[in-house]
Amino acid sequence: MQVDRVFTNCRVATMAAGHPGLGTIDRATIAVANGLIAWIGPSAEAPALAASETIDLGGRWVTPGLIDCHTHIVFAGDRSDEFERRLAGETYADIARSGGGIAATVRATRAASENDLVRLASARLDALAVEGVTTVEVKSGYGLDVETELRQLRAAGRLLAERAMRIEPTFLGAHAVPPDMDRTAYLDRLCNEMIPRVAAEKLAGVVDAFQESIAFSADEVDRVFTAARAAGLKVKLHADQLTDSGGAALAARHQALSADHLEYTSEAGAAAMAEAGTVAVILPGAFFMLKETQKPPIEAFRKAGVSMAVASDLNPGSAPIASLRVSATMACVLFGMTVEEVMLGMTRHAAKALGRSDIGTLETGKRADLAVWSVDRLAELVAKIGPTPLHARYLGGI
Amino acid sequence: MQVDRVFTNCRVATMAAGHPGLGTIDRATIAVANGLIAWIGPSAEAPALAASETIDLGGRWVTPGLIDCHTHIVFAGDRSDEFERRLAGETYADIARSGGGIAATVRATRAASENDLVRLASARLDALAVEGVTTVEVKSGYGLDVETELRQLRAAGRLLAERAMRIEPTFLGAHAVPPDMDRTAYLDRLCNEMIPRVAAEKLAGVVDAFQESIAFSADEVDRVFTAARAAGLKVKLHADQLTDSGGAALAARHQALSADHLEYTSEAGAAAMAEAGTVAVILPGAFFMLKETQKPPIEAFRKAGVSMAVASDLNPGSAPIASLRVSATMACVLFGMTVEEVMLGMTRHAAKALGRSDIGTLETGKRADLAVWSVDRLAELVAKIGPTPLHARYLGGI
Ligand SMILES: [Zn+2]
Ligand SMILES: [Zn+2]
Repeated sequence: MQVDRVFTNCRVATMAAGHPGLGTIDRATIAVANGLIAWIGPSAEAPALAASETIDLGGRWVTPGLIDCHTHIVFAGDRSDEFERRLAGETYADIARSGGGIAATVRATRAASENDLVRLASARLDALAVEGVTTVEVKSGYGLDVETELRQLRAAGRLLAERAMRIEPTFLGAHAVPPDMDRTAYLDRLCNEMIPRVAAEKLAGVVDAFQESIAFSADEVDRVFTAARAAGLKVKLHADQLTDSGGAALAARHQALSADHLEYTSEAGAAAMAEAGTVAVILPGAFFMLKETQKPPIEAFRKAGVSMAVASDLNPGSAPIASLRVSATMACVLFGMTVEEVMLGMTRHAAKALGRSDIGTLETGKRADLAVWSVDRLAELVAKIGPTPLHARYLGGI
Repeated sequence: MQVDRVFTNCRVATMAAGHPGLGTIDRATIAVANGLIAWIGPSAEAPALAASETIDLGGRWVTPGLIDCHTHIVFAGDRSDEFERRLAGETYADIARSGGGIAATVRATRAASENDLVRLASARLDALAVEGVTTVEVKSGYGLDVETELRQLRAAGRLLAERAMRIEPTFLGAHAVPPDMDRTAYLDRLCNEMIPRVAAEKLAGVVDAFQESIAFSADEVDRVFTAARAAGLKVKLHADQLTDSGGAALAARHQALSADHLEYTSEAGAAAMAEAGTVAVILPGAFFMLKETQKPPIEAFRKAGVSMAVASDLNPGSAPIASLRVSATMACVLFGMTVEEVMLGMTRHAAKALGRSDIGTLETGKRADLAVWSVDRLAELVAKIGPTPLHARYLGGI
């Protein structure tokens, strides 16, 4: 078999479905051609491989490149003052009411150029890259006007072209009602102007919304999702973070790729998600930073058979956490997820949350996005906080 | 004034006592001669300075190099399996009883050469260095026999010579009773052989002990501390982490430099510490990783006027956290310390916990250990998790 590159002498966690645990292969070979995995399996069973380059990985562990399936990295401004205000006793809602919160980031982001946004987001992407991340979902939602929302998505598109990272842009115009606009007028603009333009200009394939007492109601989200699907876009939802507002069921009703946060989701909500194949994206960073106490119903998701992903939620306010690994550690310590669950949650299940079947596992025909680790046990990636023992990171085998 | 080096165009948080907050100077100049600060103050008031080199810091923030005043970085072995066992429901005590915990690290550390220990600890030191740390306390305690304890301390001494980091070695032979030895016989050896040798060979200036139901009793620690002080060594204590065993008061009675952990310390204990000038070293990492619920009495320490430091406790079991910054973030989020308190807790108060008056603040005559930060507000160092925005780090001005 003629291929471009062969990786030998490694232990692989393929994360492939239908295999126990992480789908490990002890002495593995991976062959790459045209950016895809041409062959993967035990070295003893490998066919004759002719390659221009063979890379000996020295017995190291290989996993799929990690996937951060929920971030808000395209923004300007700093909100570290809110961290201090929360320590002094103000709540997230207090701060939002006084002009802080999302509105503060909207002001800074509207004032930033596309170049500024690309530069600022690039540094955040680099922080994820050194953790072995190869795909990042990137939301808009800090413009809340046509021009800035589209600028955020164009910046995300440039990240895809300019950085060694796969980017999945998501349109989150329904993040908050802009401070300078009437609620109904904004929803009209969102559904009649912004979503059609996002679809027509192919700036994002997915529409997200924030359903919450302080954001949009179920009826309003329903309208946004209906417009999104009419425009041929998929949907996902910030659901049930601070109250049980039926977000999980609403997401499921719209065949959402994922519902995210889910601290207050009910068992019925979990069952609806399982039925619809909607992934539960667990976001412990905001829970930690905001000192929340209501935990997502991990056991209900397990019982219902809901796929769980873990993401950083990297954003300037509730989760200024440029670390998918720390997020995974928190998912274990704070929510009781197992190491196996968070490893699948940063690979196969995160890919499912993005609606992508070409990444997230290491199987023939999938993209050769690899993370190579200098650890004896993969659990070390989650059990320890500090610099990441990443040996190498390959995107499409390169 | 003839000096070696001048730093200009910076904002400085001197952390000096007797000044409000962090003792900031807006437009500052720092002059260094022979590794010490020869002059520091507002640039407008600077004397004529003749230097072979002037460094323009571009308006950046400068603080004292950070100090991690409680670590166990000289060890071998990996205990990530215990993270998984705790997630599966086993307690720290269960794991210790089945041969895990400190005993597991003792086995691996006894089997490691001095070169191995230096190499392993060096990587951990480097992780702290990129966070702007310039001084690290390093404990023994994973040998629990003469040979290995001294080997750990010699490794710590080599780190001091070989890495760009100040090291404060601490003898923690009283970490646990070794599994292969009788309790009384070990205490005899500790007091009659190990402590005198540590003092004679100048391997450490401080003796630490772990007072806890699962470690040593108050009477036993009293005996160890008496031997330490007779040998001319200072003392500090792992106190009141899992139960109120009167550790704070015991530490104060022996004029301990610090008492560390302190989750169960009483108001009387806090008052005794204030009276003795014993620093409270707050260690949120183990609290987080072990899912503890009893928080140290921060408010009592404030009221009593106890100086509080924050440290990583970096160790292979309860706090595999190679990050002083994440520890500071946790001290704020989990324990309600303020950003100002944790910044002083990683500088001036951490120096006091080590009994050092030459570091921890930026004042004339102190060592020129500087951390230069690419942030607009110092609070960003604590309010955000991810790569550290460290611009440069100087040890003795170099
Ligand atoms: Zn979000
Ligand atoms: Zn300790």
